[in-house]
Amino acid sequence: MEAIPLLTLKRLPQYLEALNRFKKAGLKMVSATKIAVFTDVHMTQVRKDLAYTGVVGTPKVGHHIDELMQAIERTLNWNDISSCFLVGVGHLGKALMGYSELNKKGLRIVAAFDKDPDLIGNTHQGIPIYSMERFENLSSRLHVHIGILAVPAEAAQEVADKMLAAGIIAIWNFSNIKLQLPEHIIIENIDMSASLAVLSRRVAEHLHQEQL
Amino acid sequence: MEAIPLLTLKRLPQYLEALNRFKKAGLKMVSATKIAVFTDVHMTQVRKDLAYTGVVGTPKVGHHIDELMQAIERTLNWNDISSCFLVGVGHLGKALMGYSELNKKGLRIVAAFDKDPDLIGNTHQGIPIYSMERFENLSSRLHVHIGILAVPAEAAQEVADKMLAAGIIAIWNFSNIKLQLPEHIIIENIDMSASLAVLSRRVAEHLHQEQL
Repeated sequence: MEAIPLLTLKRLPQYLEALNRFKKAGLKMVSATKIAVFTDVHMTQVRKDLAYTGVVGTPKVGHHIDELMQAIERTLNWNDISSCFLVGVGHLGKALMGYSELNKKGLRIVAAFDKDPDLIGNTHQGIPIYSMERFENLSSRLHVHIGILAVPAEAAQEVADKMLAAGIIAIWNFSNIKLQLPEHIIIENIDMSASLAVLSRRVAEHLHQEQL
Repeated sequence: MEAIPLLTLKRLPQYLEALNRFKKAGLKMVSATKIAVFTDVHMTQVRKDLAYTGVVGTPKVGHHIDELMQAIERTLNWNDISSCFLVGVGHLGKALMGYSELNKKGLRIVAAFDKDPDLIGNTHQGIPIYSMERFENLSSRLHVHIGILAVPAEAAQEVADKMLAAGIIAIWNFSNIKLQLPEHIIIENIDMSASLAVLSRRVAEHLHQEQL
């Protein structure tokens, strides 16, 4: 199984979304050019990226949309749903528990964990909420390898360490700290603070320039 | 007002978080080296980044933590809270409406918009929910320049176009499509699909390798 470049992986869902639109519009076939125009990625790059899925288009005809969608999903392992655990049942954690898109994108939250006694023993969106003490036992019983980290920044490193001790190999990190973990651990960060920093400063720069 | 490099902007919140920890631990002064170790950014880079805030440390003593925190917040314009509108009151939209961190990071959601008649006229977390038809009128009345886009992919471009027509200059985009907008519009994407693509594939590659 080949290690696919990071940027290719990040673009594949965009192609999938484009293909989904074309399909809904009634198309059966699509060219790389058309995908390129829709996603604003250069045609040459689209071709390179799609080559990683193993699907070969027909010259002057293009790709079967259904076939290409399946190939992308297979490449991303989205056809095979992985169970995962979520820690931190706050606003964000709850949103993720209710986010049905996750199931289409290879993840299913099978249990959530929190330290709040009012939450422990309850469910949210049908997902049971446990105390963190049960994490290790449950992850080995259920063969869970992926953890979603949705706790406040100050608790993030500690919880991440506990996840690792329990056999987690990949963390989807929504806290705004850079976790210090061994190199073989897979970490994907959704850093809203970094994004807000850029947004906020760029708006200030823009409004300042308008005033000049 | 100088245009600060993108990566510097993205790192500043990490430094802020580190400073916050040092402060909570009782420290008054901190060196760039200490920030570098905590955030895992190279010391030279930390110094360069902090220079953009205009604060100059004292050799061998370092920075006053409070002063540096204020300087970073000022640089990010986080000391000045901007009103913004959110469109799409689903799971994610609701999470953002309840996410108190936003207020600390320069944003306040003052109104939300949705097309669901069951939501329109109600509030969530104290924030009123309106029909999209009222967006333009309210944004000009309240001088709102920032829009949060939390609608499904298929509605994202259309809603973004409406935001622009109503005078929005910056969009925080949580949909997984690349918006086609004029160049002067500020767009920050939180692309969970791209992140899930990387996570999912890397886990599959890891587990595959273990089996070999």
